[in-house]
Amino acid sequence: MLPSFDLNLYDDLDPAPRLLMGPGPIDADPRVLRAMSVPLLGQFDPQFRRFMAETQTLLRRVFQTENEATLLIDGTARSAIEAAMVSLIEPGDVVLVASFGRFGQLKAEIAARVGADVRVVECPWGSVFDTATIEAALIEHRPSLLAVCHGDTSTTMAQPLAEIARLARDHNALLLVDATATLGGMDLAVDALGIDVCTAGLQKCLAGPPGIAPITLSPVAVERIRARRHVEAGIRTASDLPANGKRITSNYFDLAMILDYWSDRALNHHTEATSMLYAARECARILVKDGLGAAIARHALAGHAMASGLAAMGLALYGDQANKMPNVTGVHIPAGIDGDGVRQAMLDHYGIEIGTSFGPLHGKIWRLGTMGYNARRGAVMTTLAALEACLVAAGAKVPQGAGTSAALGVFQRAGSGR
Amino acid sequence: MLPSFDLNLYDDLDPAPRLLMGPGPIDADPRVLRAMSVPLLGQFDPQFRRFMAETQTLLRRVFQTENEATLLIDGTARSAIEAAMVSLIEPGDVVLVASFGRFGQLKAEIAARVGADVRVVECPWGSVFDTATIEAALIEHRPSLLAVCHGDTSTTMAQPLAEIARLARDHNALLLVDATATLGGMDLAVDALGIDVCTAGLQKCLAGPPGIAPITLSPVAVERIRARRHVEAGIRTASDLPANGKRITSNYFDLAMILDYWSDRALNHHTEATSMLYAARECARILVKDGLGAAIARHALAGHAMASGLAAMGLALYGDQANKMPNVTGVHIPAGIDGDGVRQAMLDHYGIEIGTSFGPLHGKIWRLGTMGYNARRGAVMTTLAALEACLVAAGAKVPQGAGTSAALGVFQRAGSGR
Repeated sequence: MLPSFDLNLYDDLDPAPRLLMGPGPIDADPRVLRAMSVPLLGQFDPQFRRFMAETQTLLRRVFQTENEATLLIDGTARSAIEAAMVSLIEPGDVVLVASFGRFGQLKAEIAARVGADVRVVECPWGSVFDTATIEAALIEHRPSLLAVCHGDTSTTMAQPLAEIARLARDHNALLLVDATATLGGMDLAVDALGIDVCTAGLQKCLAGPPGIAPITLSPVAVERIRARRHVEAGIRTASDLPANGKRITSNYFDLAMILDYWSDRALNHHTEATSMLYAARECARILVKDGLGAAIARHALAGHAMASGLAAMGLALYGDQANKMPNVTGVHIPAGIDGDGVRQAMLDHYGIEIGTSFGPLHGKIWRLGTMGYNARRGAVMTTLAALEACLVAAGAKVPQGAGTSAALGVFQRAGSGR
Repeated sequence: MLPSFDLNLYDDLDPAPRLLMGPGPIDADPRVLRAMSVPLLGQFDPQFRRFMAETQTLLRRVFQTENEATLLIDGTARSAIEAAMVSLIEPGDVVLVASFGRFGQLKAEIAARVGADVRVVECPWGSVFDTATIEAALIEHRPSLLAVCHGDTSTTMAQPLAEIARLARDHNALLLVDATATLGGMDLAVDALGIDVCTAGLQKCLAGPPGIAPITLSPVAVERIRARRHVEAGIRTASDLPANGKRITSNYFDLAMILDYWSDRALNHHTEATSMLYAARECARILVKDGLGAAIARHALAGHAMASGLAAMGLALYGDQANKMPNVTGVHIPAGIDGDGVRQAMLDHYGIEIGTSFGPLHGKIWRLGTMGYNARRGAVMTTLAALEACLVAAGAKVPQGAGTSAALGVFQRAGSGR
C-alpha cells in the first residue's frame, strides 16, 4: 500500500510546477503535451494508419536508419528491450551483456527472465569498456546476442559503439543497443554502426512522456523473428502457417505479430495506444523539423555548461569525463553534506528535481539531467543558482556566483540564443 | 511496411472529426484528453505518489473492491491479462479458459504462451455458458486458474458471473475476469462476486485512451504472486531474499515487483507512464463523481435505445438478447448489402465509425458501441440517422425514420436529459 496521503479524489490535477532536472523523466515539450489532447481515432481508420506511417518515417530519421521495422512498443522503455529479447532469444541461447551500470544489470535481468544463458562482462562504474575486453568476452562466450547500453544514466557514462558493433559482426552476434537515455541527444547512427536492435523511450532526450517505446530492427533481426511467427488463434487465416521456429513466449511482446500489426495487412494485435502514438509522432516531428544535428549540439552545449558550472562551484564531477553522456552529469555530494536533504530543499523551495543514483552510488552522487526540453540555458542557469543556494544553506562553502558565471560563459561563447 | 500514404511529416495532428461508435476505442471524454496535457512529474515526487494513491482509491470504487492491490499496468488492456497470467501461472499449471468469442481465444493464447497447460471450454458464439458446462469442465480439468471474459465484444455477449465465481471457489481455482469491455458500463462487484483478478482497459466504458490497464488482485492472488518475488539485481537489498516460488518469466510484467513499485517502499521498476496515469485517474474520477450506478444506467439506456432503433429499422439483432452487453450491439448485415461498403460510407460521409467482427462473424454482423463518452442520446441518434441513409443509399429497404423514432422514444420515456 502506498503511504497514506491527504487524498483529494475529486480535485483537479493541479501539481505545483516543477523543473525536472534529474535523469528523467524530464519536462515534456508543451507541444507534445498538447498533441495528446487530439481526439482519438479508430486503430484502423485510414487517418490513424497514416499517422502510424508518418511516425515510422520520422523515427527512422531519428534512429538514422532505413530499417522498415521501425515502430513503437506500447509500454515504457524497458518494454521494448523485453520485446526484442523475448522475440529474439530462445531458451538457452547465450546472451552477453556488457554492463557498466544499473541499466546493464537490467538487461541481464530481462535476458535471464526470458530464458537466456546470460553471461555478463562488467567494467567499473564510472568508466566504459575498452575494445579488448569486449573482444575477449565475445571469444569466450560466443553469444548469439550482445546487449549494451549506449548511455547508462546510473553512471552517466556513454559507451562508444563503433568498435563494439564491428566486433559483434565479426563474432556473429546480433547487437542490441539500449538508447533509452541518448536517442536524440547523442549521435547514434543505427545503420552506419550496424546495430541490429535499438530501443528507446520518449522521456529523456525526446522530450515526451514515458509510456511508449520506439524500436528499430535490422533486416537480419526481423528475419530471425519472422522464423518464430505464430499468428494467434482468432486472427490467423489459412495462409498464416506457423513458422518453424519456437513460438515466442509472450503474446504482448511478440514482435512477429506486432510487425504484422504495423504491416499493410494490419493484423489485429493490441489496440494501439492512440494518445501515446500522437506523443511519439510529435516528439519525432519536432526533432526532425529542428534537425537532429541541432538537437545533438544543443544537448552537448547544455551538458557542457552544467558540468562547467558544477566544477566552478568546486564540486567534483563523477566518472571518466572523456566518456560522459552530454545529457546527464554526475557530481560527488560534498563531504559532510546531506545529499537527500539538499535534493529535498531543491524540490520544496525551488520546485527543481535532481536525482541521486542506484546501488553503490546511492547518496554518493547527484545526477543532473540536461535533456530534451530542458537542454536549454534557462533550465541550466536556474538549477545552478538554486543548487548554490541550497548548498550554502546546508553549510557548504561555495564560491559565490561562480557556477552560474561559468555556465553563462559557456552559453555566451557558443552564441546560444536560448 | 504500411501501405504508402501521402505522408505529411510536418503537419499538425489534425484529423477529420470522428464519432467512434464501434467496439472501441471510442471517443475519450474531453476532460480525459485535457488531463493528459498536465505537466509531467518525477515518478518519486510526493505529488505524483499522491496521484498514484488517489488513482488506486478511485479504481477500487470502480472495481467495487477493497483490494489493496489495485493498480495500473503500463500497456494496453491485454497487457494486464498477460501480467496476471505470467505472474500467477507456472509452466505446466492447468488453466481453464471459458471462451465464448475471440477474446476468450486470446486468453487461451496468452496462457499458452506463458507455459500453461491450457484447457478450453467453448460455447457457441452468440451465447453464454450455463453453469453445468462450467462445473463439468472444472471437475474434468481441475485447473488452478479459470479465465473468462465478462463481456466479449466480438460476440457482444456478457457472461453472468455469480455462479461461475461460486464454482471456481468450490473447485479451488482462482478466477480471472477480463472486464476490458464492461468495467464502468455493467455492474461488476469484484469483492461481492469473489473475483481474484480483474483486468480492464480505459478505451471502452471508462471513456479514456488505450494504453494503460487497470487491474485488481485479491489477497489470495497477491499471496501467490509474492511467493514468486525475486527483486531484480541493482534494486534488491540484503532484506529482499528471493522467495521460494519460481521466478516470474517476465521482468516487465512481474507483478511482485510492480506491487513493490506501488508500495510505500517505492522500489524502482518501470518509470510510470505519467500522462496515461493522469488519464486513468481522470477516467475514474469522472466515473466516481457521477456515480457508478448512474454510469451503468446510462450504458443500459443507450444500448437499449440503439438496439431498439436497429430493430425498428428492420435489422435482426445478433445473438442471445437476454445476455447481450448493454454497451455493444451486434446486428446482422442485411442480405445483399455490402457490409464493408456501408461502414466505409458511414466513415467517409458522416465521420462515424462502426465495426464488423472477427473470424466467423467477419462481414456477417456489424457491431455498434454505445459506451463511455458515447453512451449518450446524441451519439445514438446521429448514428441511427446516418445508418438509415447509408442503407438506403446501398439499396436496402428501410422504413423511413423508424430507427430514430424508436430510439428517441426510449430516451424520452426514460426522461434522459442527455
